Amino acid sequence: MSVTVVGSIAFDAVTTPFGTRERMLGGSAVHFALAASFFDVVHVVGPVGDDFGEDEYAVLRRRQVDTSDVEHVPGGKTFFWRGEYGWDLNERETLDTQLGVFAEFEPKLSESSRAADVVFLGNIQPDLQRRVREQCDEAKFVALDSMNLWIETARDSLVETIRSVDCLMLNDAELRELTREPNFVRAATQVRDWGPRVVIAKQGQYGALMISDEGFFALPAYPLETVVDPTGAGDCFAGGFMGYVASQLDGGGGLDHELLTQAMAYGTALASFNVEEFGVERVVRLTSEEVAERVSELRRMTYFAERPVELRR
Amino acid sequence: MSVTVVGSIAFDAVTTPFGTRERMLGGSAVHFALAASFFDVVHVVGPVGDDFGEDEYAVLRRRQVDTSDVEHVPGGKTFFWRGEYGWDLNERETLDTQLGVFAEFEPKLSESSRAADVVFLGNIQPDLQRRVREQCDEAKFVALDSMNLWIETARDSLVETIRSVDCLMLNDAELRELTREPNFVRAATQVRDWGPRVVIAKQGQYGALMISDEGFFALPAYPLETVVDPTGAGDCFAGGFMGYVASQLDGGGGLDHELLTQAMAYGTALASFNVEEFGVERVVRLTSEEVAERVSELRRMTYFAERPVELRR
Repeated sequence: MSVTVVGSIAFDAVTTPFGTRERMLGGSAVHFALAASFFDVVHVVGPVGDDFGEDEYAVLRRRQVDTSDVEHVPGGKTFFWRGEYGWDLNERETLDTQLGVFAEFEPKLSESSRAADVVFLGNIQPDLQRRVREQCDEAKFVALDSMNLWIETARDSLVETIRSVDCLMLNDAELRELTREPNFVRAATQVRDWGPRVVIAKQGQYGALMISDEGFFALPAYPLETVVDPTGAGDCFAGGFMGYVASQLDGGGGLDHELLTQAMAYGTALASFNVEEFGVERVVRLTSEEVAERVSELRRMTYFAERPVELRR
Repeated sequence: MSVTVVGSIAFDAVTTPFGTRERMLGGSAVHFALAASFFDVVHVVGPVGDDFGEDEYAVLRRRQVDTSDVEHVPGGKTFFWRGEYGWDLNERETLDTQLGVFAEFEPKLSESSRAADVVFLGNIQPDLQRRVREQCDEAKFVALDSMNLWIETARDSLVETIRSVDCLMLNDAELRELTREPNFVRAATQVRDWGPRVVIAKQGQYGALMISDEGFFALPAYPLETVVDPTGAGDCFAGGFMGYVASQLDGGGGLDHELLTQAMAYGTALASFNVEEFGVERVVRLTSEEVAERVSELRRMTYFAERPVELRR
């Protein structure tokens, strides 16, 4: 029954040890939508300015993403972000952020966006996330991402929004900052007390760790010889995860632990492709066969058989 | 056919957010031996001073560890380390190191220590590690751990020692420092060119990542609500890993990928118990049933079934 995402639609300027791109299509909603498009129809909600043209729309439409809720603000400028990564890609510095049309954004969802079963509230101001959440009152599974900026400047609103979702996906360090708990288990327990039954800590190059009603599940990141640009990896993870959930709800499946473990695998696979090249360059070329193959490879590299062993007392 | 370990036998003073211990039994050889003792007979090689008494020997002997190559240096003082961990336990500072009897240590192995199939060269000066390696010329599987100190002060000797072993186990950050490669895949390729066919990056709270001839294998750390003291976790990982390898070689098994994946699981399980309390407090109380149960739990929390899915093109 489709997926709706609200988040940034952006132009990014990125420098990594492997080069620089001065202006490329990016933003949380874009990365999410391209990844989720392997599983279901995706409705993108967000504003763009006059600088957002046919070439950019075409990238989304080639993957059959529904752009009818992409709001063109006449005279406006599309959100812009400039960042630079350090040598091992674990640290990044934001050099410039221009909100542009996002400064005045008021989300208005069409009927089809409101009717989605699965909704992802990408990393934007938590009041805006909540207004989208309220419009999607038939959703069966809603997840939210956020960042240190909102934890530091709008914590109360963020916590209120988190109370209204089923799943919180946050970077490891941000989950610690949000809950003031250094330990994942305690941090997740606190968040689950607020409402979400699923909490996922995204651990960057190390993978992702999830807790649900049925306990823990964790996957390492897929090891790559070259990571070119980590921008958007978390959103691609979310796209693979939520896209998989949507495709299974379409098939009438329940939202059980097994479904969530599969979703973790698809999220991990999609994120791993995204970082292989700058921006969306790799994912726009990605094939469904490549996705399936990487999920199989991920299964192989985490599987160990059950082998009873005689231990010494 | 038993396991031999050379490494520090120490008294540790440790402060973590959960408290302080002024003097407790520790050291890489001790943590390793207690963990490996669940799988096979372990011979500990290393020096102690007059302050190392019957109580300390008893801890090892209760787990049937062979202490006949623990060399008592009359008039000497046992190796001492004092360290303090930060709030999230990821950073630690060494406040004091007193080499004591280690300053003059010259490893001399008995017949039974030399005859071990499996040898672990714990984190000590690489020349000493090599002298032990040379005495164990019938070993079928030798692994080595090291640290930033030796990478910075004795790199050539360390690389020479690495050339003589089958497996390098190193902290993530130290593997990067040793190879000057930020990327695990490239770092591991470089180490494998030196000789070891197995390279394991220990990632602390995130788990461990291995590469062998047959590709990657990775496991997350077991999630715990309370991590009291990470000291010795890496050595317990090594103890579980090498102990399992030894027990399987005893049974006539070959050293294949499946064996190594199981070894990763036992290493991960043993490390997870070690950090639950200070020093060796938890592992000395550990039962073989608890070990087996945690390995099963680890399997459950990383397993996802094979489920073909129709992806959109």
